[in-house]
Amino acid sequence: MARVLTPRAEDFPRWYQDLIAKAELADNGPVRGTMVIRPAGYAIWERMQSEMDTRIKTAGAQNAYFPLFIPESYLRREAQHVEGFAPELAVVTHGGGKQLAEPVVVRPTSETVIGEFMAKWVDSYRDLPLLLNQWANVVRWELRPRVLLRTTEFLWQEGHTAHVDEADAREYARRILHEVYEDFMVSVLAMPVLVGRKTARERFAGATSTYTLEGMMGDGKALQMGTSHELGQNFARAFDIAFSGASGSREMAWTTSWGSSTRMLGGLIMCHGDDNGLRVPPNVAPVQAYLMVVKEGDGVATTAAKLRDELRAAGVRAALDDRVDTAFGRRAVDAELKGYPVRVEIGPRDLAAGNVVLVRRLDGSKTPTPIGEVASAVAAALEADQQSLYDAALASRLERTVEVSTVEEAIEAAATGWAKMPWAAVGAHGEAQANAEGVTVRCLTRADGSVPDSEEEPDLVAYLARAY
Amino acid sequence: MARVLTPRAEDFPRWYQDLIAKAELADNGPVRGTMVIRPAGYAIWERMQSEMDTRIKTAGAQNAYFPLFIPESYLRREAQHVEGFAPELAVVTHGGGKQLAEPVVVRPTSETVIGEFMAKWVDSYRDLPLLLNQWANVVRWELRPRVLLRTTEFLWQEGHTAHVDEADAREYARRILHEVYEDFMVSVLAMPVLVGRKTARERFAGATSTYTLEGMMGDGKALQMGTSHELGQNFARAFDIAFSGASGSREMAWTTSWGSSTRMLGGLIMCHGDDNGLRVPPNVAPVQAYLMVVKEGDGVATTAAKLRDELRAAGVRAALDDRVDTAFGRRAVDAELKGYPVRVEIGPRDLAAGNVVLVRRLDGSKTPTPIGEVASAVAAALEADQQSLYDAALASRLERTVEVSTVEEAIEAAATGWAKMPWAAVGAHGEAQANAEGVTVRCLTRADGSVPDSEEEPDLVAYLARAY
Repeated sequence: MARVLTPRAEDFPRWYQDLIAKAELADNGPVRGTMVIRPAGYAIWERMQSEMDTRIKTAGAQNAYFPLFIPESYLRREAQHVEGFAPELAVVTHGGGKQLAEPVVVRPTSETVIGEFMAKWVDSYRDLPLLLNQWANVVRWELRPRVLLRTTEFLWQEGHTAHVDEADAREYARRILHEVYEDFMVSVLAMPVLVGRKTARERFAGATSTYTLEGMMGDGKALQMGTSHELGQNFARAFDIAFSGASGSREMAWTTSWGSSTRMLGGLIMCHGDDNGLRVPPNVAPVQAYLMVVKEGDGVATTAAKLRDELRAAGVRAALDDRVDTAFGRRAVDAELKGYPVRVEIGPRDLAAGNVVLVRRLDGSKTPTPIGEVASAVAAALEADQQSLYDAALASRLERTVEVSTVEEAIEAAATGWAKMPWAAVGAHGEAQANAEGVTVRCLTRADGSVPDSEEEPDLVAYLARAY
Repeated sequence: MARVLTPRAEDFPRWYQDLIAKAELADNGPVRGTMVIRPAGYAIWERMQSEMDTRIKTAGAQNAYFPLFIPESYLRREAQHVEGFAPELAVVTHGGGKQLAEPVVVRPTSETVIGEFMAKWVDSYRDLPLLLNQWANVVRWELRPRVLLRTTEFLWQEGHTAHVDEADAREYARRILHEVYEDFMVSVLAMPVLVGRKTARERFAGATSTYTLEGMMGDGKALQMGTSHELGQNFARAFDIAFSGASGSREMAWTTSWGSSTRMLGGLIMCHGDDNGLRVPPNVAPVQAYLMVVKEGDGVATTAAKLRDELRAAGVRAALDDRVDTAFGRRAVDAELKGYPVRVEIGPRDLAAGNVVLVRRLDGSKTPTPIGEVASAVAAALEADQQSLYDAALASRLERTVEVSTVEEAIEAAATGWAKMPWAAVGAHGEAQANAEGVTVRCLTRADGSVPDSEEEPDLVAYLARAY
């Protein structure tokens, strides 16, 4: 097959840009840092949304929608929050042809405005927990944008909840971390994310604890795929989210927030893509089986349509490509690029023998398959390849994670993968030293892999890497 | 039942505001004109989106996402378009802590930026039609905002398509009008919308034809529920959406756009609501059957849970309210306010006789129903009430539409409903005269109710009304 993309080993960032352009996933927008998500990319995002949304609702949160525009003064109410976001704000100074009395900011995240409304809606402990989520666009001005990964505008979901006490808030932030994010990333995206706790230095602006899910990309770098935060009583105090407790006393609520965005699309590409293009895990693939008419001939069109209907009836997301006026080779390269898990090639020669050819994106295998066995063969291939993608990504992550004992070694290891070392041997000084070299502590875990309650716990493990 | 809302006959706008607040559907945002869509309101919007999205995809359009920020210069390329939107723009002048070299506008609609990308993506007639849709927020600065109806920011879908010729563009704009919008509004929202053509004066800024769906509200005013536009070659010329035809010649595309928004939620409320609250048509109701535990007692909790599961298994969207520590009367008033189509009241006294009580929101009827018959009784009630709501709204629209022969009579009729008169008897002068009195020509239809191709056709009928 002719070279379509810059090979990953040659220039990984270039490969990423090439792939996004040629698979028609996204494009840069006209305003610096913004992006267009094209239909092929957006269809994957819609599948992600649907899978996430189901899990969020199962966790008891309700969807709502809060305004894009936030009074500038709201952000100033939580000191760390405004400090964290001030450099990234987009500010609207004119509306309806006039200069505004108070400039408004385009939401970089919605803790403040949602805090304001939680305070209105919460009165008694009976109103808690209040569990909200919204699907929205947010804006953070990016000086070094990269499509899908760092964009001035991106799409995301942001959850915001209020609880009666710290324990309940912590339990919920952790529930979202594991039951929504980790489960989705592992079982749908086939990504073996590392789940841990951020250090104080890497915490969200205004949080008391930030939990994270880190994915390893094809070049060994890390990508933060989602975060869940305990906000303590910081935002409750700033916005007066108070309630009368069971005993009648006035108490401050404890809040959480948690988010995941279209950068997961970038992560999916960089985790599973190969030199021929994207490889979409079957569980998130908008098209799982791509039926290609090789060329016209006796019974080809009717067989193709019949197979498509049969696959759809069996619950497989199937699409039919009968553009025989476009060269087959070109269409096949395009199907590789777009990463459809299974191709079913239907041509007159095989059909004369009662067969079609089943081509799997993962290993490139081509198997002549009797018409009557297509549905079961496709189902088996989809299930196997979902698992194979996960297994391969996990093997790669383990292989590229090096145990080290000093920060210098960690910085060296971060050139090709992740470094793992005792957190006690890093410390505040070591973290600053790594940061100066462009290496960050991605997260902390306990020795058994579980998520710590504090960075002060003994025997914690730190993972250091370069990151997107 | 105690008076919960201002009666419609007393003060319709006040009734609307009361209802939205008390049914917890929406709230005003902190920046003037913006809004918060609360979970009860957003759940209806999600059902609307899902029903619309299915129809849009069936019509062949693909979802994509384009940027929120548009260079100011884009809007200026189409003269009528910029003239129409300039007074409503929100302008971002600062980003990332610096003044921007070129201010950017927050999209009031996306014809321009999508036109720019269509031009990049379309090369040959084989790339057409290009059928795109996006679900997004847009901003139009509102001086007289009204929640859900006229808000500075609102949520909508906007479709944008490019075609080889005028006939194909027209056919598609009409297909969306009837197969997506009209079908959705009639069969899901139970709203007997009037479908017609806008006059030149009422057309979208930059369109050559605008088709509309007008709903009649409870006070006899009109609400534009959705529009579909033919844009001719106006945007194609402005953004150079050109293609090589089958013969190799360079040709300009013909484009369309079409949109519907969260104002449909406002329309739903004002069309079907009564003095006790919202009445949600079963097909769009997030909760179709609301199971209420009246008070605790032998077998009450288990029966309630069993009925909920049974209804869900039968495909009914059922929710269980077992908050027995809140007075039953208060919960019942709340259920009326929120407009759940069917309530199932489960209490120990009826249960002793093997019954529960089925309460229908539409007629307030209370029917003791044996446990074993609940599922079939609920299904029958939902089907009947969907139809009843449509029938009642249609009867009301016909009753409040008066045939008149002069503009003066039309203005008078618009005080309580719609006026219907020959378009030839209105004319440009009559339209201006009506406008001066706050009355507009909502749309033109042919005598047989079909949608005209031009306002120059003979024997057209004009509908005039006051509108939201």
